[in-house]
Formats: sequence, structure tokens, C-alpha cells
Amino acid sequence: MADYDPQNVFAKILRGEMPAQKIYEDEAAIAIMDVMPQADGHVLVIPKAPSRNLLDMDAEVLGPLFAAVQTVARAVKKALGAEGITITQFNEAPAGQSVFHAHVHILPRWTDVPLRPHTSKMEKPEVLAAHADKIKAALRG
Amino acid sequence: MADYDPQNVFAKILRGEMPAQKIYEDEAAIAIMDVMPQADGHVLVIPKAPSRNLLDMDAEVLGPLFAAVQTVARAVKKALGAEGITITQFNEAPAGQSVFHAHVHILPRWTDVPLRPHTSKMEKPEVLAAHADKIKAALRG
Repeated sequence: MADYDPQNVFAKILRGEMPAQKIYEDEAAIAIMDVMPQADGHVLVIPKAPSRNLLDMDAEVLGPLFAAVQTVARAVKKALGAEGITITQFNEAPAGQSVFHAHVHILPRWTDVPLRPHTSKMEKPEVLAAHADKIKAALRG
Repeated sequence: MADYDPQNVFAKILRGEMPAQKIYEDEAAIAIMDVMPQADGHVLVIPKAPSRNLLDMDAEVLGPLFAAVQTVARAVKKALGAEGITITQFNEAPAGQSVFHAHVHILPRWTDVPLRPHTSKMEKPEVLAAHADKIKAALRG
């Protein structure tokens, strides 16, 4: 497996060197809106600790990371009125990984609404902001 | 969300009431071959604790469950000579869930090999057994 490159986009977002629509943060992870959503309300949960993906992640990161995934997934489902949540996590390019800092996709789902292709089309910032506001409200209670 | 039904297929497998090609077991989870694989070497990791999916799972299950996912994913990648691993986890039917006991899919990936459809075609037991043997060998070392 290739090494971890600290110049990847999510590392820059974690260091505050690039903007993102952040909806959640705890000691272990942040959650941001995916700028090329496969579904309305598509969120990424990103562990703060550097790892390329799940395969090289320190085992102690897993519990806090997926606790954040669970918290955010529940809020996304409520905020978007989703009927289900698909969770995906890609390890290496042949598996669909395009940014090489570990991350987990949270995808709201509705009956008969297929996912859009991965990394296909940039969403308008104001649409992402509206979804982010709904999810932040759901996280508050 | 609907309740947990203890008569689901994975609960029966956990109780030993139905057969499965088991490749891994620890205190928190088992891993079995998916009988309708979306890719050669498609494995399911199933927490022993009853929950419908990730949304209603006890938070303390998450760390041990994903530690098992990581252990098995590394072994699957090595055993199958995969170039990547896609991890998916479906919550409720509109998200693709078909058995209502929580489970995580581990899917070996290769460049330009698309996944087959979910729950499409039963694989021959001897093919599953051959993949299971390879993964069990990789787990041993």
C-alpha cells in the first residue's frame, strides 16, 4: 500500500487550509458535506488521525470514528426525512477511493431513488448549506 | 424504525440453526461468505449482539465490530489478491438492506471489474468454500 500523503484534500480541511461545510466535530472526527453528492444530504465522516483508509487505520480509531458515523447518520436520516441510510467506505482506487485520507460516506436513501455516480457533479454551495443547516439542527436535538 | 425480529436469517446462523461458511469469529462478531457474492470473496461481518442495523446498534458494539471488519478486510484483500476493498453497510430496505440483523459487506475489488448486483445469483458452495479456505489461511498468518 502507498504511504499517507499529508497534502491530500481532507488533511488540508482538517488543518483549516481549505474550506468545507462542516456539520459535526468531536475529538476523533469531523463530518462535512460532500461537494459532489451522490444523494441530497451526502455527508463524509473523516477521522482526525492520519491514515490512508480503513486498512491502515489504528484500531483504537475505529470505535470513536464509527460512533461519529452513527451519530451523524441518525441526524442525516432525520434531517432529510430519509427512508434509509447507505454507508460506504472505499479502500484504494480500484474500490472507488479518490481522496487518500480515510473517510466514510453517509448517503440518505429513498425508495426508487438511485444514487448518483460517485464524484460526478459539483453541487451549488447554497444547496449544500441548506442541507448542512438541517443536519446541524437535527444534531442539536 | 421497525423492531428487531429474532427469526431473521443471520440470527439463525448466529444460533447455529442455519448453516453458513464461517471464516472468522471473535467475542463480538462472526464473518461468513455471502452466498450471493457481488465479487469473488464477498464476506459479511455480523455482530453477535442483536440490532436491526447500525442506526439502532449499541454504541459499545461499534469498536469491536469494526475491528473485526478491519481484520477480515485485510485478510480478504491478501487472500484474493485484491487491489482494493469496498465496504458497504445498508440501513433499511430503501438503502439496500435485505436481512434485518446488522451486517457489514466486505467486497474485494480489482481495476475495471464492476461489482455484480446485490442479492442476484447464488454462488456454488464449492466456490464459496475455496474462497473461505483462502481467507482462513490469510487470517492465520
